[in-house]
Amino acid sequence: MFSLIGDFHNWWNEQLQAHPFHVTPAPLDQLKGWSADQDTGVIRHHSGRFFSVEGLEVSTDHGPVEEWSQPIIDQPESGILGILVKRVRGVPYFLMQAKAEPGNVNLLQLSPTVQATKSNYSRVHQGKAVPYLEHFLAPRRGRILSDVLQSEQGAWFLRKRNRNMIVEVDEDVEVLDGFCWLSREQLAALFAVDNLVNMDSRTVLAGYPLPGTSAGTHNDTASLLSWFTEAKSRYRLERRRLPLNAVKKWIWSHDAIRHEDDRYFEVIGVDVVAGNREVASWSQPLLAPKHKGLVAMLAKRVDGQLHVLMRALTQAGTHDVVEIGPTVQCAPGNHDTSPAFVEHVLKAPKEQILFDAVHSEEGGRFFHAENRYVVVDAGELDDVGPDFTWMTLPQLAEIARYGNHVNVEARNLLACLIFQPSEGR
Amino acid sequence: MFSLIGDFHNWWNEQLQAHPFHVTPAPLDQLKGWSADQDTGVIRHHSGRFFSVEGLEVSTDHGPVEEWSQPIIDQPESGILGILVKRVRGVPYFLMQAKAEPGNVNLLQLSPTVQATKSNYSRVHQGKAVPYLEHFLAPRRGRILSDVLQSEQGAWFLRKRNRNMIVEVDEDVEVLDGFCWLSREQLAALFAVDNLVNMDSRTVLAGYPLPGTSAGTHNDTASLLSWFTEAKSRYRLERRRLPLNAVKKWIWSHDAIRHEDDRYFEVIGVDVVAGNREVASWSQPLLAPKHKGLVAMLAKRVDGQLHVLMRALTQAGTHDVVEIGPTVQCAPGNHDTSPAFVEHVLKAPKEQILFDAVHSEEGGRFFHAENRYVVVDAGELDDVGPDFTWMTLPQLAEIARYGNHVNVEARNLLACLIFQPSEGR
Repeated sequence: MFSLIGDFHNWWNEQLQAHPFHVTPAPLDQLKGWSADQDTGVIRHHSGRFFSVEGLEVSTDHGPVEEWSQPIIDQPESGILGILVKRVRGVPYFLMQAKAEPGNVNLLQLSPTVQATKSNYSRVHQGKAVPYLEHFLAPRRGRILSDVLQSEQGAWFLRKRNRNMIVEVDEDVEVLDGFCWLSREQLAALFAVDNLVNMDSRTVLAGYPLPGTSAGTHNDTASLLSWFTEAKSRYRLERRRLPLNAVKKWIWSHDAIRHEDDRYFEVIGVDVVAGNREVASWSQPLLAPKHKGLVAMLAKRVDGQLHVLMRALTQAGTHDVVEIGPTVQCAPGNHDTSPAFVEHVLKAPKEQILFDAVHSEEGGRFFHAENRYVVVDAGELDDVGPDFTWMTLPQLAEIARYGNHVNVEARNLLACLIFQPSEGR
Repeated sequence: MFSLIGDFHNWWNEQLQAHPFHVTPAPLDQLKGWSADQDTGVIRHHSGRFFSVEGLEVSTDHGPVEEWSQPIIDQPESGILGILVKRVRGVPYFLMQAKAEPGNVNLLQLSPTVQATKSNYSRVHQGKAVPYLEHFLAPRRGRILSDVLQSEQGAWFLRKRNRNMIVEVDEDVEVLDGFCWLSREQLAALFAVDNLVNMDSRTVLAGYPLPGTSAGTHNDTASLLSWFTEAKSRYRLERRRLPLNAVKKWIWSHDAIRHEDDRYFEVIGVDVVAGNREVASWSQPLLAPKHKGLVAMLAKRVDGQLHVLMRALTQAGTHDVVEIGPTVQCAPGNHDTSPAFVEHVLKAPKEQILFDAVHSEEGGRFFHAENRYVVVDAGELDDVGPDFTWMTLPQLAEIARYGNHVNVEARNLLACLIFQPSEGR
């Protein structure tokens, strides 16, 4: 364990040296192990595992665009994202891992104890065993603090889910090379560093139990659940798979698939050479967003308790019509006119900013997918409309215990907030 | 309001007189307004609304049968099941309705204040307006006690859901003909009467808020949610729609569709003449189970608190792989050997029975679908296996606040239990 956060950074620099990792662009149509189906254009691995890039046609009455088609990642199997916790003299420590992914900004990021697809841990890669996996597979000895199937990026994944787990153990745990224990305070400090704590860590840590309190809440939980049910009932989301080569407005070249407006994202290919992964080298497609995103919550205090403004959101890949997202979730560069509250967030003076850091999304699927995660004071707001509602952090955390309720962007920001010393227990 | 339950029964006898309702069998292939698609056999209404009877092929590794095909009801639109509550001198009263449905045993049953499909309330029937609907559609004035999209019978419905709502109002509410206010104690007494309180009422009342307490619980809620997530992750459920006429082992005749073993259910047709419904007469298909079902929970007291044994269950129509069901849920007549715990329930001596009544399932879709709902003392049990877990009623009620977690059979029995004077608040 590190007594000072500077010790962590020294260790991190050693890890950077110890993880040789090289990523080079590669033509999408010549990726080793991958090919596009002759008839449909669907991009698949020869083994049939991992993931595929497919086409999707979307029709919805929720949001500014009613109909569109897009490439989307289909990964039906869900993996395990697990973090081990151990208390030392009553203080919880989290076992984190330095792990490189080809799409990561900075390549190396702080990852959960276990971050493994079923293909990983059932050894489809023919690689090394996944360390610490035994703590997360039944039968387990540890105490479960959180365990839920959670959604991932709905704009880019079709109904993707991973199992998010936090398991507390009492026994001694050997700290393998590339792993370290971090306290809540240390994690809070690292959340404030850009592109360090990866998405998988953030979504898992969002499940760390908060002491629940509904005192001083603006809306009781029954009303919040009703607001969610109302949105699910109000809107419609219909989807139909398309051949990837039939997706309108998307242009294929030998190196990528792009939108004709040069917006949203590209599907690209990379070759990877890794020093200490299960497999030493591989190639894969990645989804590369064209613009940096903005993930923001407006916040206000009511009777001393922080309330955040949450939004009912429908995206192409949303599991069940709507999930609960942050106030703002978009890439402003994709829009001709700013979506609701974007200007409010971008123009907020420094003293009204409660949290602000850039984090990137899963580097195993997304290339340099950076989002600015920010919480700003709401100030005086007019009526926010039926797609928005206020809730406290304990209410948001309680609802997030149930799968497919709170989306990954909102959970990521929740994790950043609940680990802040002022908001946590 | 009735000061004595006998006054209710007198009122009920008047209602029986006031609701002329005649149901006669009709050939399935000549139902007015309905027809089977020439190519696929799918049975649809000419308007394209209400519901259809389709074919489904199921493959799962959860349960005794790995592959089968069956007819199933597809009703993609969800309706509203809503109950109004009003307190008089602090005591809550529930506004219930005497409503006849063609499949009901006894025809007339006690129904929610509002029980309306979207087709009903958007007037596809061209019938009368739905009374009290304004209390359940936004914007509402009342206080929400419960509001959640809940699943229905997974053996017979493909992913069917209805919005279950309880709304408390302060203002005076006019009691229309056919409606009455009932207290919790009166409802508890009526739950003990066979085939009186309909399924829609039972599932809605299961959402009535219980004072939550996790004191003395055998499993904490994080462990329970983990058990549920584990089951969802462990099992697979794959489904493919089939032409109804391609469903194997099911035999068409002009009057019905039957299984070749004369088990499970039949799809039949009925003509209906009703005195006081939106539409005075109509025809429709109904699903008629071949055998009476058994819905049972094993129960035990731990530190004075009632715990029930719940089961992770996968059925043909289950929304998302598994839901939480009661200990036993089956029609023993469909099985050559009794499923787990059936013998324990059937052989329980009278003094070990905590609750026992026969209720029938939604009479608008199912014909005489009777289940015996029973709670029995568990006695000494061996290891129950990973598909089962113990929880308290407040824990079950808390999890049932989130949609597609607790199945309709378990919610029905939960309603019977939480309205018992000994278990409620």
